[in-house]
Amino acid sequence: MERVEQHASCGGRQEVWKHASSALGCDMKFGVYLPAQALRGERCPVLYWLSGLTCTEQNFVTKAGAQAHAAAHGVIVVAPDTSPRGKAVADDDAWDLGQGASFYVNATQAPWAAHYRMQDYIAGELPALVERHFAATDARGICGHSMGGHGALVTALRHPGRYRSVSAFSPIVAPSSVPWGRKAFTAYLGPDEEMWSAWDATALIASARERLPILVDQGDADEFLATQLQPERLRDACAAAGHPLTLRMQPGYDHSYYFIATFLGDHFAHHARHASR
Amino acid sequence: MERVEQHASCGGRQEVWKHASSALGCDMKFGVYLPAQALRGERCPVLYWLSGLTCTEQNFVTKAGAQAHAAAHGVIVVAPDTSPRGKAVADDDAWDLGQGASFYVNATQAPWAAHYRMQDYIAGELPALVERHFAATDARGICGHSMGGHGALVTALRHPGRYRSVSAFSPIVAPSSVPWGRKAFTAYLGPDEEMWSAWDATALIASARERLPILVDQGDADEFLATQLQPERLRDACAAAGHPLTLRMQPGYDHSYYFIATFLGDHFAHHARHASR
Repeated sequence: MERVEQHASCGGRQEVWKHASSALGCDMKFGVYLPAQALRGERCPVLYWLSGLTCTEQNFVTKAGAQAHAAAHGVIVVAPDTSPRGKAVADDDAWDLGQGASFYVNATQAPWAAHYRMQDYIAGELPALVERHFAATDARGICGHSMGGHGALVTALRHPGRYRSVSAFSPIVAPSSVPWGRKAFTAYLGPDEEMWSAWDATALIASARERLPILVDQGDADEFLATQLQPERLRDACAAAGHPLTLRMQPGYDHSYYFIATFLGDHFAHHARHASR
Repeated sequence: MERVEQHASCGGRQEVWKHASSALGCDMKFGVYLPAQALRGERCPVLYWLSGLTCTEQNFVTKAGAQAHAAAHGVIVVAPDTSPRGKAVADDDAWDLGQGASFYVNATQAPWAAHYRMQDYIAGELPALVERHFAATDARGICGHSMGGHGALVTALRHPGRYRSVSAFSPIVAPSSVPWGRKAFTAYLGPDEEMWSAWDATALIASARERLPILVDQGDADEFLATQLQPERLRDACAAAGHPLTLRMQPGYDHSYYFIATFLGDHFAHHARHASR
């Protein structure tokens, strides 16, 4: 594990680390914000952020303004990359498949299965590493944007007891039913759609063993709202299952980091409330 | 004038505009944040932000977290590009000369003099355009980073009465005396160093007709502190002239946008205080 960046930020430190991932079989980078409390050795809860298509660990740490909120709440923030990386790792020329577009699943199909085990990485290897290396408690929250919003919802739903809180911005709530998800799932999981429901938040809600309250913010001027996101599918699934959901439609907001930065403080408050419960 | 980007942000709107600049003889882009008050037609003060070497209008608007502060204070924020642009505009292969590195002067030397009239643009054409097109008052503040910190100080000092307030992050306070500035001034203004003092904040302080209080934040872990920035030169010049200066050395902070984002709220408060005087 090697630190490749460090910057004083909001009384704490924004760092980027590089390490050899055993789950993924390649080198990975992640961003970590350590608030002053963590730098002093006081153990802090951890919020995991999963980014959207084409992102690396950099987008969230440079554009979201998360550090001020993390400092105010005394929370460590971990922002991993969005897929395995490197020349030895399968890729595709399209921006919505392969590197930068893992959809946070464990792939079962060639050529993806060799490295694309992002779910194992996000829910297992990375938290273990973080809790060993930094002044972290095991109070975990998970949040993400678009493909990463899907990732956050699915990761929390698949691992009851592992996260205290979950939230998402503009998530792909029903990947099995929309073009981005269907393309990725066909490649990573194969054409048998029965195998897809274990990776689809809207499908998982029905059988969830834990009713973790979900906070979702969605801009109503989001250019992907009708084609790829369709939050009403999550609303209906939660209503049918009695799963607590706060879905906030934000008038005029689009799919960008300007939207995320505007409402990120509310998500930090949501996660902090559950971390200290 | 054509709007090329718009995003809802913090209750207002982050926009990017493109226009044909007569001062520069080329097309230019600038970012403008319009708080809710301005969108409703209430006239707001304007803060101009000048960015550092290699930047475009994008760096500040995507990385600084300025929108939340601008919304809280009801301030319009204008972030221009750092030089004239385009194939017809002189350039250099080095990142610290030519496009992206105007130093905000009016160049007198070939081949730069044809387009590099950034001071006329920043202090004249751009404010006139902004005050005509948006719900802006003539209460102007100016702020910047590194080369843009130099630009902010020099622009305010050269135009007594035109700005209500000035501040800077990690400014090049004495360009005539440091490598970045000497290289740029030799190219843009020629080898006669007598011509440089009109563009050097530390030199201008002695004869300033207006004693606008200056706020400067400087990280003490800034990689350019000793070679290019040397804030003690500004401190000494202000002390000698009786010019009000608040110079804050920030322990552990570097030259990055993480530093800017950490202390930007204090700069907005400084400018808002003077705008409403």
